[in-house]
Order: sequence, then structure tokens, then C-alpha cells
Amino acid sequence: MTPHIAVVGAGLIGRAWAIVFARAGHAVRLYDPSQAALEEAHSAIQQSLADLVAADLLTSATETFSCIQFNDCLTKALEGTLYVQECGPEQLDVKRDLYQQMEALVAQETILASSTSGISASHFSHHLSHPQRCLVAHPVNPPYLIPLVEVVPSPLTSEQVVESTMRLLFETGQQPVLVRKEVQGFVLNRLQGALLNEAMRLLQDGVISAEDLDKTVKHGLGLRWSFMGPLETIDLNAPGGICDYAKRYGPLYQDIDRQRSDTAPWHPELLATIESELRQQVAASDLSPRQQWRDQSLMALISHQRTRH
Amino acid sequence: MTPHIAVVGAGLIGRAWAIVFARAGHAVRLYDPSQAALEEAHSAIQQSLADLVAADLLTSATETFSCIQFNDCLTKALEGTLYVQECGPEQLDVKRDLYQQMEALVAQETILASSTSGISASHFSHHLSHPQRCLVAHPVNPPYLIPLVEVVPSPLTSEQVVESTMRLLFETGQQPVLVRKEVQGFVLNRLQGALLNEAMRLLQDGVISAEDLDKTVKHGLGLRWSFMGPLETIDLNAPGGICDYAKRYGPLYQDIDRQRSDTAPWHPELLATIESELRQQVAASDLSPRQQWRDQSLMALISHQRTRH
Repeated sequence: MTPHIAVVGAGLIGRAWAIVFARAGHAVRLYDPSQAALEEAHSAIQQSLADLVAADLLTSATETFSCIQFNDCLTKALEGTLYVQECGPEQLDVKRDLYQQMEALVAQETILASSTSGISASHFSHHLSHPQRCLVAHPVNPPYLIPLVEVVPSPLTSEQVVESTMRLLFETGQQPVLVRKEVQGFVLNRLQGALLNEAMRLLQDGVISAEDLDKTVKHGLGLRWSFMGPLETIDLNAPGGICDYAKRYGPLYQDIDRQRSDTAPWHPELLATIESELRQQVAASDLSPRQQWRDQSLMALISHQRTRH
Repeated sequence: MTPHIAVVGAGLIGRAWAIVFARAGHAVRLYDPSQAALEEAHSAIQQSLADLVAADLLTSATETFSCIQFNDCLTKALEGTLYVQECGPEQLDVKRDLYQQMEALVAQETILASSTSGISASHFSHHLSHPQRCLVAHPVNPPYLIPLVEVVPSPLTSEQVVESTMRLLFETGQQPVLVRKEVQGFVLNRLQGALLNEAMRLLQDGVISAEDLDKTVKHGLGLRWSFMGPLETIDLNAPGGICDYAKRYGPLYQDIDRQRSDTAPWHPELLATIESELRQQVAASDLSPRQQWRDQSLMALISHQRTRH
């Protein structure tokens, strides 16, 4: 029998991870100290599974759901597991205590992977007896719809732990990428941040409206980026490939890079203006239905992509 | 009878614009001084129309093709038109001469729109008698698959010309956005450049491989961006909308913004490394078939999106 996967924390991310692993046929123990959180997770997971079935992305909700055990005892949840996906609060002191607690409950070879979007594994593992088993496996929300996972080892993480984690995630149907250094924001948020920072500057300078900026991405840049990366994209945009492209457009991008003003471009007044423009498109009370629309659109996109591969 | 649209220049972009306007039912005169270029355009357009029909994005290739007249005489191509989409060489002196020539051949109210990706309308129109009729309408290649068009007036362009151009493009099935200032690279390439500059830095610093960087976008960021802009995206990623999001993640992005090194990140040695990695995925001889794959994928994506709206 394959050992179960333990998911620690039954909030938004923990629930989604439970679906990812259960969907791939793993036995999952979803732990949370709060019974109320587990009950909420119970019905939220059932809803998500029903949505996946409706979108033709899952054959049996019952079968998948039956793989998940809900557990309010950490000892029981971790007993015998070889992989823990930690989804606890984003607070360093809480994580430090949690990892110390977990280490005492698992076998020496058990991998402890954190879903954190911002805390490096170094910071919550250096005090442990076996820090080589710890790393970050940062998903995009929700991971059962967006397959990317950033795997970020600390300098103390063993190569074997990195490899096993990458393999497990890949076999589970995710797309793990290896982030070799513990840089702030990892890679996805650094790329997103670079684009958002430039967007904020353009809005600040009155170059474009918020609505038109969004259009520029969704009707322009974003179409290719949903099935090709930015390097693959420019590699096809000049007859001689990426170096040819760099000769033609590199100087433009370097100029733009040099033009950046030094001030960080997230001004509260600017944000208030952008928000009022966004609220004209989607009222505050419609944000939640809009999130459902987003997830439906994502499911439809993924279902479409499956027919292509 | 509605006046025809004149497309000046039958290269890659001119051919694609001819398809855009003809597909919407406009009579099109496609001009090029070279008979060879016109003949090449003739067969290239037929091929593209056949591809569109095969992808269920066009009902009749014959009907669309019959809307396009091929013309090697500028006077005849422009006679009676109210809208010229210029797709000439990206050289300022060539454009200046061409606009002077075109101005002498058209009615006073005729709009002269340039497909240029880099030259501001100010630079090729200030010497004309009627610079208020000139502006940039920069497409993404190919415009019959990617609907975004950046409309960039010069300070001399009249508001009426801007409005008419936006309306014409929208009614033709494109998604025009208004770029209010003549900034270098306009908006799309500034956003793309910001992301690429950060990508080059991460590759330079050995944080991630080229393949994994591409994965981060196509399996992560790019999925939502194919149907939502970056502002809409973060607006849904915090319970209270974009200002709530900015409170949580703005400081991270500001930090990342401050960490940028001053050197422009497009080093030839780095590019050579990236290229060799990309060539392992797609050999140089496969770049052209890969472009066809890209266009097929785009057509499939657009066809999918149509079923959703």
C-alpha cells in the first residue's frame, strides 16, 4: 500500500491540495486543529468536486472524495506519511513551531513541503534536526485548476528530497518548476510583479485606462502565454530565433528598463482611482460571483487544452 | 456603397490586415509597388483563409478573398478611400515620404493609420498639411488571430480621427485600446518588456532554467491572462478587491522593484545560453513548423473562446 499524503491546514489552499492528491488516486489525510474548519472543508471540497465533474475534468466525485480523510489530530494525520504538504498560517513563528512539532511525528525520510508564497524554507527549517527534508512547494490558487508549482529548496535541502518532490508533483498531474535560489517572491510573483509595476507606472502617467490595460493583456499578450512561455514566444517572433529577436527588440526593452522611475509605483491615490474604475465593471457585491465565473472559465480553458494534447 | 479600405504594403502585416478587413465585409485594396510581393500575398492570403475555415473561424474563404483587390498603383489603391492602414517599412525617412505621397492622393477627411510598432505618429506626420488625420494603429501579429490594436494618436491628431478609428476597428472585430501618450514601445511591448527584463535577470542570476521559466507562465500566470487582464486578476485575489490586494502584496512588489539591478539585462552570452536551451526543445529547422503549430493553437483557443461568449 502506498503511504498517504498528509495535508496540514484545511483552509483554501489545504482544501485545494487535498483535491489535487485525491484526484490522482492518493489517500489523503487533511488535518486542521479546528473542527469547524474541517466541516467547512468537507462541504467546500464536495462543491469543488461537483464543479470539476460538471466541467468534464473529473469522472467520479464520490471516488475522489472517498480518498480524503478529515482529521483533527496531527499525530494521526502524520502517522506513516512520507509527504506532508503544509498549508498553515503565513507567520514565521507559527511555521517554526509547526515544523518542530511535525518533525517529532514523522519518519526521518518524510518530506515536509510548505505551500508558503513568501517565507523561504531556510527560515522555518534551520532549527530542525533534519532540515534537508524541508522545502517550499508553492502552488497557484487553486492548484487543481492551475498546475504550476514552484519547488524552492533551501541550501540545506537534499537533492534527493528535491527530486522526489518534483517527481511526486509531476506524477500527481501538476507542473513543478525548480527555483534554484531562495529569491523574494520566487519566480511567478517576480514576473507578475514586474508586469504589474510597469502597469502601475503607465496608469500613474495617464498613458492608458485600467480597462484598456486589462484588454492589452487579455486580447493581446495573454493569448499566446496561455500555451507558450515568454521565451518560446519571442523565439518564434524573429526569423532567426531568440538571438535574432534580441538584436531587433533587445535595445527597446533595455531603453524601457532604463526609463523606470525610482519611486515604487503603488500609490494609494492611484489604487483608489483604479479601484473605482474596476468597480464600474464589477460591483463590490459581484466580486464573489465573478470569482466563480473565473473558475468556470479556467475549467473550460483546461478542458479545451486537454482536447488539444 | 461604403468606401473601401486601403492597405499599403503587402508584407506579413499588410496581408494580415487585408484579411481582417475583408473578413468583416469591407472592400479592400491591398497595395504594394512590387508585383512579386503582391503575388506572394495572393497565395499567402489564400492559405491563411483556408486555415481559418479549417479552424471554423470563417465560413467562406472565396467570399472573403473576393473582397480583396491587389494593386500595384498607389493612386488607384487610395482613390476614394476614407481609411488607409499603412504597413510600409519601419524607417522614418521612408514613412515620411510615403505619408507626403499619400496625403496628395486622398480626401481631406481620409484617416492615415500606421501599423508601426515603434515610430510615433508625430515623427512621420508633423510635416504634413493635415497631421490631424494621422495616428498609429499597432496590431499584434497576426491581427486576424490576435484582436488587440493599440491606437496611439499624436498630440496633433484630432479627437474625431481617434474616435472614428476606434469605432472602425471595433466594428471590424478587433479590440482597440487607446494609448493616450506617445510612449516608447506603446503599452503592450512595455508590459512584455517588463516581464522579459525580469525573466532575463532571473536567468542571469541562475534562479531558474529557460524551460522552467516558460512553464511558469504557460502553466501558471498565462492561463488567467488569456481571459482576464492583470488588474482584473488581482482584483479577485483578495477578499476586498484590488486595494485589499495592494495592502497584502504591494510591499512585496515594491521590494522587487527596488531590487532591480541597474544594468540592462540582455547580455549576449546569456542569450546564447538561453538559445541553446531553446534549441534542445525546438531545433532551428523546426521553428517554421512550430510557428504553424502556434497559429493552430491560437485558432483553437479563439474558437474555444467563442463558444464561451
